[in-house]
Amino acid sequence: MIQRRIQAVAYETVQLETGLLPLLQPMSEVAGRMSVQVGAHYLEKTYGGRGMLLGGVPGVPGADVVIVGGGIVGTNAAQMALGMGANVTILDMNIERLRFLDQVLHGRIHTLASNSHNVAESVSRADLVIGSVLIPGKVAPKLVNREMVHTMQMGAVMVDVAIDQGGCFETSKPTSHSEPTYEVSGVVHYCVTNMPGAVPRTSTLALSNVTLPYGLALADLGLATSVKRDPALAKGVNVIHGQVTYAGVAEAFTIPYAPLDEVLTGSVV
Amino acid sequence: MIQRRIQAVAYETVQLETGLLPLLQPMSEVAGRMSVQVGAHYLEKTYGGRGMLLGGVPGVPGADVVIVGGGIVGTNAAQMALGMGANVTILDMNIERLRFLDQVLHGRIHTLASNSHNVAESVSRADLVIGSVLIPGKVAPKLVNREMVHTMQMGAVMVDVAIDQGGCFETSKPTSHSEPTYEVSGVVHYCVTNMPGAVPRTSTLALSNVTLPYGLALADLGLATSVKRDPALAKGVNVIHGQVTYAGVAEAFTIPYAPLDEVLTGSVV
Amino acid sequence: MIQRRIQAVAYETVQLETGLLPLLQPMSEVAGRMSVQVGAHYLEKTYGGRGMLLGGVPGVPGADVVIVGGGIVGTNAAQMALGMGANVTILDMNIERLRFLDQVLHGRIHTLASNSHNVAESVSRADLVIGSVLIPGKVAPKLVNREMVHTMQMGAVMVDVAIDQGGCFETSKPTSHSEPTYEVSGVVHYCVTNMPGAVPRTSTLALSNVTLPYGLALADLGLATSVKRDPALAKGVNVIHGQVTYAGVAEAFTIPYAPLDEVLTGSVV
Amino acid sequence: MIQRRIQAVAYETVQLETGLLPLLQPMSEVAGRMSVQVGAHYLEKTYGGRGMLLGGVPGVPGADVVIVGGGIVGTNAAQMALGMGANVTILDMNIERLRFLDQVLHGRIHTLASNSHNVAESVSRADLVIGSVLIPGKVAPKLVNREMVHTMQMGAVMVDVAIDQGGCFETSKPTSHSEPTYEVSGVVHYCVTNMPGAVPRTSTLALSNVTLPYGLALADLGLATSVKRDPALAKGVNVIHGQVTYAGVAEAFTIPYAPLDEVLTGSVV
Amino acid sequence: MIQRRIQAVAYETVQLETGLLPLLQPMSEVAGRMSVQVGAHYLEKTYGGRGMLLGGVPGVPGADVVIVGGGIVGTNAAQMALGMGANVTILDMNIERLRFLDQVLHGRIHTLASNSHNVAESVSRADLVIGSVLIPGKVAPKLVNREMVHTMQMGAVMVDVAIDQGGCFETSKPTSHSEPTYEVSGVVHYCVTNMPGAVPRTSTLALSNVTLPYGLALADLGLATSVKRDPALAKGVNVIHGQVTYAGVAEAFTIPYAPLDEVLTGSVV
Amino acid sequence: MIQRRIQAVAYETVQLETGLLPLLQPMSEVAGRMSVQVGAHYLEKTYGGRGMLLGGVPGVPGADVVIVGGGIVGTNAAQMALGMGANVTILDMNIERLRFLDQVLHGRIHTLASNSHNVAESVSRADLVIGSVLIPGKVAPKLVNREMVHTMQMGAVMVDVAIDQGGCFETSKPTSHSEPTYEVSGVVHYCVTNMPGAVPRTSTLALSNVTLPYGLALADLGLATSVKRDPALAKGVNVIHGQVTYAGVAEAFTIPYAPLDEVLTGSVV
Repeated sequence: MIQRRIQAVAYETVQLETGLLPLLQPMSEVAGRMSVQVGAHYLEKTYGGRGMLLGGVPGVPGADVVIVGGGIVGTNAAQMALGMGANVTILDMNIERLRFLDQVLHGRIHTLASNSHNVAESVSRADLVIGSVLIPGKVAPKLVNREMVHTMQMGAVMVDVAIDQGGCFETSKPTSHSEPTYEVSGVVHYCVTNMPGAVPRTSTLALSNVTLPYGLALADLGLATSVKRDPALAKGVNVIHGQVTYAGVAEAFTIPYAPLDEVLTGSVV
Repeated sequence: MIQRRIQAVAYETVQLETGLLPLLQPMSEVAGRMSVQVGAHYLEKTYGGRGMLLGGVPGVPGADVVIVGGGIVGTNAAQMALGMGANVTILDMNIERLRFLDQVLHGRIHTLASNSHNVAESVSRADLVIGSVLIPGKVAPKLVNREMVHTMQMGAVMVDVAIDQGGCFETSKPTSHSEPTYEVSGVVHYCVTNMPGAVPRTSTLALSNVTLPYGLALADLGLATSVKRDPALAKGVNVIHGQVTYAGVAEAFTIPYAPLDEVLTGSVV
Repeated sequence: MIQRRIQAVAYETVQLETGLLPLLQPMSEVAGRMSVQVGAHYLEKTYGGRGMLLGGVPGVPGADVVIVGGGIVGTNAAQMALGMGANVTILDMNIERLRFLDQVLHGRIHTLASNSHNVAESVSRADLVIGSVLIPGKVAPKLVNREMVHTMQMGAVMVDVAIDQGGCFETSKPTSHSEPTYEVSGVVHYCVTNMPGAVPRTSTLALSNVTLPYGLALADLGLATSVKRDPALAKGVNVIHGQVTYAGVAEAFTIPYAPLDEVLTGSVV
Repeated sequence: MIQRRIQAVAYETVQLETGLLPLLQPMSEVAGRMSVQVGAHYLEKTYGGRGMLLGGVPGVPGADVVIVGGGIVGTNAAQMALGMGANVTILDMNIERLRFLDQVLHGRIHTLASNSHNVAESVSRADLVIGSVLIPGKVAPKLVNREMVHTMQMGAVMVDVAIDQGGCFETSKPTSHSEPTYEVSGVVHYCVTNMPGAVPRTSTLALSNVTLPYGLALADLGLATSVKRDPALAKGVNVIHGQVTYAGVAEAFTIPYAPLDEVLTGSVV
Repeated sequence: MIQRRIQAVAYETVQLETGLLPLLQPMSEVAGRMSVQVGAHYLEKTYGGRGMLLGGVPGVPGADVVIVGGGIVGTNAAQMALGMGANVTILDMNIERLRFLDQVLHGRIHTLASNSHNVAESVSRADLVIGSVLIPGKVAPKLVNREMVHTMQMGAVMVDVAIDQGGCFETSKPTSHSEPTYEVSGVVHYCVTNMPGAVPRTSTLALSNVTLPYGLALADLGLATSVKRDPALAKGVNVIHGQVTYAGVAEAFTIPYAPLDEVLTGSVV
Repeated sequence: MIQRRIQAVAYETVQLETGLLPLLQPMSEVAGRMSVQVGAHYLEKTYGGRGMLLGGVPGVPGADVVIVGGGIVGTNAAQMALGMGANVTILDMNIERLRFLDQVLHGRIHTLASNSHNVAESVSRADLVIGSVLIPGKVAPKLVNREMVHTMQMGAVMVDVAIDQGGCFETSKPTSHSEPTYEVSGVVHYCVTNMPGAVPRTSTLALSNVTLPYGLALADLGLATSVKRDPALAKGVNVIHGQVTYAGVAEAFTIPYAPLDEVLTGSVV
């Protein structure tokens, strides 16, 4: 790209002032919603699960769903699990986030401060655990360790949505859509990377919705003007005029790093 | 009443074809709704409870409320407990009733078939137990026995709304508004008879709402015509023309019983 | 059974005065709820579907779910589909039923009078069709015919919950949990018989909830007394004292039929 | 005003740091809510509409309501349309806004990314279109063009709430409360300017609620001190000490513009 | 009809065992829902009302809507009024009905026992009164009398949905879609007969939904067989074989009455 | 503390950039939710109240609950009061806040702009008034004055959650859990300081949830580094290295004030 003088903007480094990654967010929504329908599926006996209907029926309890991480993934997972009639607990360190969820979901989920005691206790009685702790640009923390998995019930299911960032369960290892699950001490693990790939129609539309406005801006104004107007887009520029303008990439490839504004004002050669 | 030839209609024996006692129902509604606010009060540390807020706050779980009996009392209790943010489980033997509650409350409560295993298991982890098993005209069954109470947590609270029919906890004994509670193995018991007496404004209006139409009918048509038109009212007639026309009362006082229609047609002297 | 003089009560012929089959109802609930999670699964590209997330995400529409039949199966399916964020249409000939659903679900689903025009129109634009028309003791009517299936989109999914009664799609044929689906003109068909078998933990509990009271009655009172008290149970008795007391069974096996009350009063030998 | 040395604060130029116009917002709320009841009215046959009840009844579909623009007007319109039982689609370019609406309205509306394809497709099948695209201080963009209107059904209704900023339908032209509608190719257009004028009791109270605090501050502190403390109010000052302090007004009347802080510090004469 | 030997079935006399008139019910639903949108319209200043938005806006109260009668009309009206954000009170003599509404609408409306004190008190502070007291086949009772209307606020609105049965306000007199309202002591009265006529598309579909099954039965089986199978339909037969088989009609026209079963069995000539 | 060179961080002065006091917020949530259950209790006749059930029952209106102040306390109070079936009005000067509440609570509460007219009018018809106006670090304004209290009904209840900041009713004076209430002109006043003390289990957990992360940071990094990274924590430091670093405290004790950054950089002795 450097040689061909391509102007490269990376989806995953476009970043708002708030720290949000707007072009990754739709995939988090898709993965979060999908994680629960995946979990419901693998709870069926036929697929190795406890043989339990996620939502139960009147007179028979539904599944205990524990969601570790109340961000975009976790919130979307919680909405689905609630909608299917499960008993939902969500853990997050950010109490302000739990307050918002409690208010918007009208007190229908159990919100729990995330700490190792609460995670261990919740996971041990869960039928389905959704791992949804993603820290943009970092390896996911292993909030559920091997010991906790050992305390779980036979046929319980774990879905690690953070697997693309390394996973947030100690027992997670990446799998694929063709062989999506494996077992650890009787607990079904679903750790498919690129979960949204299973629903390309929805994923593509969701992605276009957020990328189209950037595309139109680039087409209208060109890259130089666009990035001046939109600092989020500026952060997405990785390579331009033969220079690497994203520090992380420069470092990873040991190529010299050139700050974008210097490249654009011509002060870098 | 017999000597004075009073025509006596008893509220508690007016009975619809469906078995419902229409003049007692409002009191069941009041007691059911009140049971939860009473329970919330006694869960405060100051009053002997676990020192726990019924609804919790975001990040801290609310109370586990277990309601034994899903009739009018239990349904009204469930609505209040849900509204206050508790985690509500309701047990009933009638699965059809559980279905209705699940549908009308949009899956927000845990419905559980009532059997001794489920009752024991639910009660043992409850913070608040509402006893709401009432069988019209019968002594309430003791669904929660002493052993179950022993398994409960210190400072848990039990409210026995069925106390007027003898109570549905083995450890229940009647109390009054002036000294409403006592403890059994660390569990606070609230067994006030005539709970609706604490909210006379609401109770009186609720009662008038259902008795007024009967009163108007009696004033318009007289008793003889009214009971002919309304078999529910006929069942309410206990004494008339110096005769006891309600079998249970006749038996209790060993007075001869005279069927109402015979008395009214003059075929009994 | 006749020779061994076994007293045989068939789950599927116990019938309430209202026509309801109380021992089959829990299985309808399980199958109805499960039908939507099955449908969501097969809408994934990996499994032959349209590659679409049932609930969509903000900015991208969810699936159009069309439920043919608003009985127990259909109502439970509708609750799940709504909860997952789909766009739900339910068809039934019984307008009174549609009124109830509209009221209880607060207008969140589209209710549509069932007739061939409305079924054809709805099915043609559906992403997921749930067939839930069951008439107790009868073969299900084929409400969705082959022509309608031809109008559907490639990768749409059909789940025929009525398959145990012959199915309500003309293109349905029974499948099993090991090979659950097949395609007709690009439309995925899921027609697994005994769907609740995939979630035995939930199904067994749900069934016990409704059979236990009958079992206790039989244990306490014996069959003869029990059936006298409970006409629903009486309808369940198929074989007793070496006589076949259920007309349908007698006819199917060309064995003489003996009315139950005659057998029990000894008037039949 | 200049000659009389009046201190003039314009409601419509008071502006928060976030860009919101706090003194116009209540009128947007009123107009947004009113737009749906207006739409329902003109859908009646008597007034030229399709002869359709906005909310339908059980068994008969309600109207498809398409709301172009998910800001304050659009959100309030969506709440009303949902509440009346319509099938609601809302389009906005801001996906973050759609996420918020999806979450707060619990997935009850269809959210759709706004682009010309989606607008055209939605409008073509709509019974009622609400135009609610307002960009503060700018002419509204014509998101629905004449061709799209031609694809609509006879008797469909369009309400252009953005008419005070020029309207967001190409076919819009201002009307008044006395003659509120006209037709374009069979589609009823309602383009009344100053819609909130029809409900003066509500509008006046709503306006007082937001202006009163400013009024009290002005009365307490005088204009000079007030604007120092509150930059939003400062933006509202148009004329003071015989100087025009709002650039747009100065330009429109070709009067010299004097920045407010200079006027107040006396550095301008 | 008698001379031409027409077989006449009247929609309005087809009657279920429960007393419901199944072919009139859809019109009650349409009228009930429409009554609120009509009320909202006439509350606008332009049309003589208080100049108030039915739903208010945040910080400004919405209208007080009082619904007299909680049957089908009243329930549908309540759903609309709630959905539009009004403050809704519903009065009915049937407490059981109020219980159902309270439960299904999750306590969102004020339910009030209907008696003259409560009606008077509610009406006096109402912005919109919906009259929805219909007793099948009887003249509607005048529950709101002239004195109550005098206590109402200037510009309040009354919609009498019972006007086809004579109206349930003392001050009601029939109006038409062309001149729908008049004033009594400053209170706008809307008393249009045949309200559903304004939304023929919805009304016709709603009516077809309920009449089609009867029509199909008649086409399949003929009238004689159909009425034998369906007693509700039998009640609808007014004229057959030159005989009048509906008592009320016979009486009204002083024509001899012939019971339907006698006519059909040929025992009447 | 100065002599012992203790490093003192005060919970109540840790403050976010937004002005929020994150370590006090959980106590506001507890107090807000508790205020309604306290109010319900004292509305019982036994405890001096109007003898009224907060939520009423079908056919009998529930209590009018007026909440003065829509911040954290008021919002939590509103959620509880709504959940228990009361008729809730919330007043706040911040219309933006009322908008948020209206949207999140789906229009279920009456929002009213706070001004002396609206407060007086609302309070005069209230059964329960919750005072929840807290301005961080300031004495609460007396929004409800003695005259307003005189207009209230006998047996109405007032709960002043702002009592720890001096109370927001003119008639408030601090009480304790042992003697929680007193009467002013027949109105029960509950003004217990430290309300959350009654539910220590919930309060302690809620507090730990927010303090633990600060504690962990302090343990990991020490105070000096922690405050550099977290300006909110820096505001919490009151005493360090024998210096008073919080202006308010220094002033109250007339001890010299030393800005924290100077103390930490050693520029103060």
